[in-house]
Amino acid sequence: MHHQLDQLETPVPLVDLDILDRNLDRMAAYAGEHGLALRPHIKTHKSSRVGNEQIRRGAIGLTCATLREAEVMSDLTDDILLAYPPVGEPKLRRLMALPDHVRPLIALDSAESIDGLAAAAKERGRPIRVLVELDLGMHRVGATSAERALALAQRVVAAPPLEFAGINFYPGHIRQAVGQQGSSLEKLNADLHDVLAQFERAGLKPGIVSGGSTPTAYHTHEIEGLTEFRPGTYVYNDRSTVAIGACERADCAVTVLATVVSTSVAGQAVVDAGTKALGREPRDGEAAGFGELLDHPEVTVRAMSEEHGMLDLSKTSWEPKVGDMVRIIPNHVCIVVHLNDFVYGVRADVVETAWPVAARGRAAVAG
Amino acid sequence: MHHQLDQLETPVPLVDLDILDRNLDRMAAYAGEHGLALRPHIKTHKSSRVGNEQIRRGAIGLTCATLREAEVMSDLTDDILLAYPPVGEPKLRRLMALPDHVRPLIALDSAESIDGLAAAAKERGRPIRVLVELDLGMHRVGATSAERALALAQRVVAAPPLEFAGINFYPGHIRQAVGQQGSSLEKLNADLHDVLAQFERAGLKPGIVSGGSTPTAYHTHEIEGLTEFRPGTYVYNDRSTVAIGACERADCAVTVLATVVSTSVAGQAVVDAGTKALGREPRDGEAAGFGELLDHPEVTVRAMSEEHGMLDLSKTSWEPKVGDMVRIIPNHVCIVVHLNDFVYGVRADVVETAWPVAARGRAAVAG
Repeated sequence: MHHQLDQLETPVPLVDLDILDRNLDRMAAYAGEHGLALRPHIKTHKSSRVGNEQIRRGAIGLTCATLREAEVMSDLTDDILLAYPPVGEPKLRRLMALPDHVRPLIALDSAESIDGLAAAAKERGRPIRVLVELDLGMHRVGATSAERALALAQRVVAAPPLEFAGINFYPGHIRQAVGQQGSSLEKLNADLHDVLAQFERAGLKPGIVSGGSTPTAYHTHEIEGLTEFRPGTYVYNDRSTVAIGACERADCAVTVLATVVSTSVAGQAVVDAGTKALGREPRDGEAAGFGELLDHPEVTVRAMSEEHGMLDLSKTSWEPKVGDMVRIIPNHVCIVVHLNDFVYGVRADVVETAWPVAARGRAAVAG
Repeated sequence: MHHQLDQLETPVPLVDLDILDRNLDRMAAYAGEHGLALRPHIKTHKSSRVGNEQIRRGAIGLTCATLREAEVMSDLTDDILLAYPPVGEPKLRRLMALPDHVRPLIALDSAESIDGLAAAAKERGRPIRVLVELDLGMHRVGATSAERALALAQRVVAAPPLEFAGINFYPGHIRQAVGQQGSSLEKLNADLHDVLAQFERAGLKPGIVSGGSTPTAYHTHEIEGLTEFRPGTYVYNDRSTVAIGACERADCAVTVLATVVSTSVAGQAVVDAGTKALGREPRDGEAAGFGELLDHPEVTVRAMSEEHGMLDLSKTSWEPKVGDMVRIIPNHVCIVVHLNDFVYGVRADVVETAWPVAARGRAAVAG
């Protein structure tokens, strides 16, 4: 494959291969420098190729959200964290059917999850490692006190072949750099310190303390006691990652290639990428639009229908014509990837390769 | 297939087969009663099975947004409207490769679209019928005056094997019942009357006058001069269709089955359906939430992450437990379907069938 962009049918997601390499290298170097284990979340790329690049650069394992993701990533690593509890017979059955070489690690926050998992693991005779999920301020999931977390850990210990492996949290509410007195990271450090102290007093020192996300990625070493982190978006980045200061605009690896299909209504141009290609993901409310043009940062996607994106031309002297192609930096790249079956790898304006979004969808890999 | 809901792995979209049948019947009856041709937009279901049910009930053809949709629907009908202009070589090549029995009908609004289409049609020697798209107040695409529309029609006439077939518009801005003086439908009727008069004076009477959408569906007969309409969402309906008064809550055929996976944080329960299952589609702003529970209308999906939906329990006495299953009526069903490879057909709580969302994605049907 070696052709020009105008030979691609739009809308289609492009991955700038040079930027992807740079993003992968930078996070691997940061992890190495601080002696942190890197367990990237593959929800962003859902790709065996990118997952393999992460492993090759030293990632100790991978983080997955769905069983489909875990099945696909089983080809790349033994060490898979399923960051969401498998609740209910169908998910438990599928978890137990993962290839034998995989040593699943499961994050959970309820007695019901533990009991269901323990029953399935016992029936199958398969050891399952468990991380107790903590709520350290995100208020989404996780045990809300050290006591509750400890009680869950003790329930795991009492239910072999489950194994208590450590604790897990997602600091997605922390989006700022640190250092100031009273910052949310200082609060997190204090809370985490209390939890770790209680666990140690109970004789249950967590082997794994897993936290971290792309927004806080390069501050992970400031979280005391952490052993590993799980950034996902850093491989591709997007307008939101730029907005929170976690990368530069030039670090955005993914754009959606689109074609201008109408300029009939004054003051706007319409491209063939709408919500079904970009996702309706706001950034700082809808005023910032749903994406911006790589080559015309002043032009945003003001509104969308399912297959139409309306470009706001009020701030530009650019005069688009029907047939012009544009590259849109999306607000949230994880959703763009999830909407597509394939992505195309480009360098400059040349298409070098394409790969399937192999872990997209929810169907079982093996029938 | 004949099993209970708890044997399905969540999140998964369910179609209530009785409601689907009723919705299909009602629209077919309305079209028959008023002598209107029905050309449903298949973007909502992307399914050969549902498309076939529409044809079987008298639809004269189908409306598609993408070439993938047109390819899949070629098995069902000869008469396919591609409601978006195919701009650029890759799309034109694919359009021309549709099976020979298909008589494509293309809506467009620019000289560039006409010229590209004419060149491709001429090279292939394939007649292509063209509808000139009008902007009648939606301000998205379409010629913005009768003069411009007429000039486009004349350009089509001058470019065989293109054939001028009529005009097309989308009254998506009209969401209210009609009858009042000065309503937007009266304005639309006046504008449409002017356009039709100008076309007739120029000797170009449009054979097809195509308009209508789900919101205005049952008022289509009030649009004077219309020959056909193209509702899409009516097969499934959703919370937005209810909110604009175009259907009742009991007419919503699709729910997303989800499982409660965490109740750890007080005041909320977390289900395994987030933006990657429901889409981030607001209704009346985000305050109304992203969906509501079929069995607990007072409970909405307040917030989402990619694989988490946070249920707002502030208005309910229901106390969900981890492992409980819920059915969520989504805000925008077209997006839910687009996110999935399969949907499951249910009656009461029994799963009777499943079918692929065959026209999902953008890859060519034949390699």
